[in-house]
Amino acid sequence: MAVKLEPPRAEDLLTISGVRLGVAKAGIRKPNRKDLLLVAIDEGARVAGVFTRNRFSAAPVQVCREHLTKAAAGHIRVVVVNTGVANAGTGEAGLANARATCAAVASALGIEASQVLPLSTGVIMEPLPVDRIEAGLPACIDDLAVGNWASAAEAIMTTDTVPKAASRQVVIDGRTITVTGIAKGAGMIQPNMATMLALIATDANVGRDTLQHMAQHVAGESFNLVTIDGDTSTNDSMILIASACAGNPKIIGEGTAEFGRLTDCVTEVARELAQAIARDGEGATKFITIIVDEGETREECVRVGKAIAHSPLVKTAFFASDPNLGRILAAIGNAGIDDLDVSKVTLQLGDVVVAEKGARAGAYTEAQGKAVMKPEEITIRVLLGRGIETATVWTCDFSYDYVKINADYRS
Amino acid sequence: MAVKLEPPRAEDLLTISGVRLGVAKAGIRKPNRKDLLLVAIDEGARVAGVFTRNRFSAAPVQVCREHLTKAAAGHIRVVVVNTGVANAGTGEAGLANARATCAAVASALGIEASQVLPLSTGVIMEPLPVDRIEAGLPACIDDLAVGNWASAAEAIMTTDTVPKAASRQVVIDGRTITVTGIAKGAGMIQPNMATMLALIATDANVGRDTLQHMAQHVAGESFNLVTIDGDTSTNDSMILIASACAGNPKIIGEGTAEFGRLTDCVTEVARELAQAIARDGEGATKFITIIVDEGETREECVRVGKAIAHSPLVKTAFFASDPNLGRILAAIGNAGIDDLDVSKVTLQLGDVVVAEKGARAGAYTEAQGKAVMKPEEITIRVLLGRGIETATVWTCDFSYDYVKINADYRS
Repeated sequence: MAVKLEPPRAEDLLTISGVRLGVAKAGIRKPNRKDLLLVAIDEGARVAGVFTRNRFSAAPVQVCREHLTKAAAGHIRVVVVNTGVANAGTGEAGLANARATCAAVASALGIEASQVLPLSTGVIMEPLPVDRIEAGLPACIDDLAVGNWASAAEAIMTTDTVPKAASRQVVIDGRTITVTGIAKGAGMIQPNMATMLALIATDANVGRDTLQHMAQHVAGESFNLVTIDGDTSTNDSMILIASACAGNPKIIGEGTAEFGRLTDCVTEVARELAQAIARDGEGATKFITIIVDEGETREECVRVGKAIAHSPLVKTAFFASDPNLGRILAAIGNAGIDDLDVSKVTLQLGDVVVAEKGARAGAYTEAQGKAVMKPEEITIRVLLGRGIETATVWTCDFSYDYVKINADYRS
Repeated sequence: MAVKLEPPRAEDLLTISGVRLGVAKAGIRKPNRKDLLLVAIDEGARVAGVFTRNRFSAAPVQVCREHLTKAAAGHIRVVVVNTGVANAGTGEAGLANARATCAAVASALGIEASQVLPLSTGVIMEPLPVDRIEAGLPACIDDLAVGNWASAAEAIMTTDTVPKAASRQVVIDGRTITVTGIAKGAGMIQPNMATMLALIATDANVGRDTLQHMAQHVAGESFNLVTIDGDTSTNDSMILIASACAGNPKIIGEGTAEFGRLTDCVTEVARELAQAIARDGEGATKFITIIVDEGETREECVRVGKAIAHSPLVKTAFFASDPNLGRILAAIGNAGIDDLDVSKVTLQLGDVVVAEKGARAGAYTEAQGKAVMKPEEITIRVLLGRGIETATVWTCDFSYDYVKINADYRS
């Protein structure tokens, strides 16, 4: 039921020199599906990561954090991703399993275990079958190739109905820089991080600290603005790889024009992936963009946008195309802005002014409301009348199928 | 689909001397249903109120706050309740309509408009048909009687499937004190306040400030611990009336043993009503009690309880009786306790230890999980391993019918 979301075509995804991908059917939870991905990164690349803030962060997230802060972090050489089992809520044994996975990959490829980043997604509180991952590695290694992005996007899916991938290019210092990313996630989706897994690579030459700051900025402008059900996963991870293979003469430093242009390009890829996650939200029939304007701070705009995006009452009304739009006002009132003057609030749906000065607009008719609720893509615009800040949040509606998918997920 | 919830029998509800109730079918939104309630309070009673913190608080809530803070507040003589239209998100016109309602009631009964508390519940952002309320008043007045609590509980229902009412008695100073209350609410239910409307009366003799403190305490221990969908309504109101008709020799003062016993009695009534709201949650098939123990503060226990109670993933798993219990750990991790040591967390369902030291318990089996997920009433117990504080939160599961009810509510 994804909303206007096509599977990426392999030929539209641009390769990133220095980054090869290989997938396998390792039978981790279910037989005969791609569920194991290796991303092999050439020497000289830098790698950054942004992870979930859930206190029950998964064992692989903990190991990723460790490996990224080690002295060796500049030399991450492999990302290994399994679906089916999240290896979260698994305590010491889970941590040992995440480390064992890294050790198995390292030994197969002749590198150090600390050069491996493990990512997992799937059911929580079940033991990771390290033996099956180990048994699947040779097939992954045989499959390694720069052209495998589409296949990799498929290998990381769980309840996703469509694989998610995007590419962009930008010219910096006379060289074409390419950015390609994949992501998965359809439920248990809310910042921070918003997606369960995203992996973005560029062939730009970026220093390690700069890359980490770029990753945080990009996450804040993309995945952290998407919400499906308000649940923050235990495993959310975004990995950003800069392979430095585009042949740019100098390292891109923070605060430079080049940094800005590259960050914009990476953000575009990340936003396309983040929006794809909302479009493919579990049971989604509508894709909803919520623009909050005239806030005092960006943070309060995000808060209002998410209060609307999280409200089950708003989401079910969109599912039914029922212009029960007072529910949006109620959600705005719940966003925790204590000194909000509701008599200054305006609400628009598409190009229809639904409410102004905190009440139903004089010219608004139910027929207009019905008309703007119908399309598969809807834009809500809220004017807070408090300042000049703005933020945009993306979400989807809440349908029977959300309940069905989540009631049946494990069966 | 209410979970183990019977309609109150009129003969089980105790009358409160000095408080008469009358209902009418005023056709406010739909024809031929009880939708207007007058509560007439004898002179000498005190009245207190606790209201929603939603910034888009409804016009009637604003007028209630005004009338309760006026000098005349000790002399509130009538509560008038309409269902069908919430009179929220209606701006200045809504405020004028709420005041017109009070004026109509005042003129019909020969009192001041400031002695009337108006309550409304129903659809947001639609104009209140004051003419229909006015036309319905004579029938309400004709109907006024102390024995009408069950009928009143019916008159305030919207998407409720079962009317909610409860009575208790306690002996203070040799006199039997009675407490009777009614409530409505099944969706858009989260603190603060938790219910859209609750009205509790006692014949005890309580000073006005004392009664207001009692009302706040009671709300915090009952309605504010219930959540169905995390949406805080624009209209949530709890009114507490003390008619002083039981003939107690002296006013019950704060900090006395009598105050404690009366507060406990009122809290019992409020809790029964609050739990009835969760049992009658829109589409509910399960009633879930979440006890959070060993917290550092009560506030963090409430936060953890609500994080679990709000998670659509947890709620859909309960609907499916699927022991996908890692979702509860993920919700605990999302409760915003930054220094939570997950390795000290224990999770029990019924009498089964599901997780200990932050991971699946050694002795736990899937079969046990399935067995404890089956009943209609389930208790979740979380031990945080941080201190001695505790809190209990009540909620229900999340079913197809929640989506159906909220997609169809207005149609």
